[in-house]
Amino acid sequence: MRVVVALGGNALSPAGGTGTAEEMRAALARTSETLADLVARDVGLVITHGNGPQVGRILLQQEYAAEYVPPMPMDVCGAQSQGQIGYLLAQSLDSALRRRGLPTRALCLVTQVVVNGRDPAFRRPTKPVGPSYERPEAQRIAHQTGHVFRIMPDRRWRRVVASPAPLRIVEEEPLLQVIDAGHVVVAAGGGGVPVVEHKRELRGVEAVVDKDLTAARLATLVRADALLILTAVPQVQVGFGTPAARALDRVSAAEARKLLEGGEFPEGSMGPKVSACLAFLDAGGSRAVIAALDDAAAAVFGDAGTTFVR
Amino acid sequence: MRVVVALGGNALSPAGGTGTAEEMRAALARTSETLADLVARDVGLVITHGNGPQVGRILLQQEYAAEYVPPMPMDVCGAQSQGQIGYLLAQSLDSALRRRGLPTRALCLVTQVVVNGRDPAFRRPTKPVGPSYERPEAQRIAHQTGHVFRIMPDRRWRRVVASPAPLRIVEEEPLLQVIDAGHVVVAAGGGGVPVVEHKRELRGVEAVVDKDLTAARLATLVRADALLILTAVPQVQVGFGTPAARALDRVSAAEARKLLEGGEFPEGSMGPKVSACLAFLDAGGSRAVIAALDDAAAAVFGDAGTTFVR
Repeated sequence: MRVVVALGGNALSPAGGTGTAEEMRAALARTSETLADLVARDVGLVITHGNGPQVGRILLQQEYAAEYVPPMPMDVCGAQSQGQIGYLLAQSLDSALRRRGLPTRALCLVTQVVVNGRDPAFRRPTKPVGPSYERPEAQRIAHQTGHVFRIMPDRRWRRVVASPAPLRIVEEEPLLQVIDAGHVVVAAGGGGVPVVEHKRELRGVEAVVDKDLTAARLATLVRADALLILTAVPQVQVGFGTPAARALDRVSAAEARKLLEGGEFPEGSMGPKVSACLAFLDAGGSRAVIAALDDAAAAVFGDAGTTFVR
Repeated sequence: MRVVVALGGNALSPAGGTGTAEEMRAALARTSETLADLVARDVGLVITHGNGPQVGRILLQQEYAAEYVPPMPMDVCGAQSQGQIGYLLAQSLDSALRRRGLPTRALCLVTQVVVNGRDPAFRRPTKPVGPSYERPEAQRIAHQTGHVFRIMPDRRWRRVVASPAPLRIVEEEPLLQVIDAGHVVVAAGGGGVPVVEHKRELRGVEAVVDKDLTAARLATLVRADALLILTAVPQVQVGFGTPAARALDRVSAAEARKLLEGGEFPEGSMGPKVSACLAFLDAGGSRAVIAALDDAAAAVFGDAGTTFVR
């Protein structure tokens, strides 16, 4: 069985942490145990992950040093975060695999994702990146850099960038070869570095691709038996926050789409995850699951989480 | 023909530049033209590169933001620099290959290198990393962090870390598979992230592996027909800076070793490069060349640079 796993922020570092390497190592060690158990049960894994807090810290470091070190654009920061997280995750997972005496190795491939330069998302940037500011500071930075800022629910301002749809993984050929050889690959971290294609050349753009949508593309590419989106909650709910709240065990694509269009899933959290599950099913996938990290093994075998089927 | 190419700093960004992404893109575009010409002549490439200025800037950014964002250890910073440089280099090279209509793709693999935790280098740190300081500032940081500082020829102080010998590339199996499939792989940037093995587990260490020595290991691993170390000068000289200075066209390993032991090659520059060439020949390699970036194609075919043979 082959499964694409999308790891949420809680799999990489503890909520409310300060972002030290030790915190990340501890969270990743726990995540790696779960993932290695799957490999021990003969599940072939392709792993992708978010990078919000990590790339946020890189952007913040760039800002504090901006007078002395020229800041890198978003695409380069995204690649740096892939190196950072991918290294720590592959190392941790590889150790967990070795402890089990498994011959499978884990590695990280720096991954780019092609997006359409005319994606309507570029006209309406929505994805917050980096630190938050009081209004005057945000205005000053916007003036200096041309970055777009938006007010957040906490009344502070953050830079927003476009979140275009992922069209294609650039490194698909070598990625497939490494997976077919039986290795666990960490790929397309943070949704992949977004690039546009122009006259056969690739060029990075200032945007962030949704990591769950990229996970769906990845799952389609590798013809995964399942897409597994791991998050902080055990199941998807309808009527969330109301007395009629109800957890979903198993949903058809048609039903899920109706619920999604009915606004049942919040845009900033469960919405994109459900959309990603539907994207995988629409592209021919047979099963997508949203589950809690600790339930990963059960979820792969259909005994936990919310399962989406065609 | 298969060649491992080690790129020096001048291939990644201009000397005296400020380190912007645009500077790097311009330098890498030029480097990529040279490399793509080799691929067009049917040379299979594995590329490795330095990361001194880039990881130096990451360390500096960390320092300016240290009050707000916890600094990452050296191994993680090295992995970030692999992501940064590997992304830009693979993208640039891939574009150069596409422009030539070549089916070969370029990609970057985050790479770890096993070193011996008891390598004597750990008792005598010599490799300067990060920014330079006046003495009091260096003392303050040394006190806070436990880092070791040394005075440099310019009378300023810099942190020094160990430079242990590279023993083995962790990702050797997948690396070989991707190379055998015909792709150009950017690997082991900055000499690879140094890790020690303890009870079958890997753990990053605060050290920097010499990138040319890692290139030699890489060349041995992939059974390269040649190791090509590209630098800013066209040939290796003996009697450097004296009236008897003489450029070397072709040297035997025995002769080179005699010159190296005689102190002909400065420790901080040509010495490690000649050592790397000898390491490759000692491990069974047939040819190693030190040449200028612009002479890469001629050097591969024996018409430029200094060639070392067994």
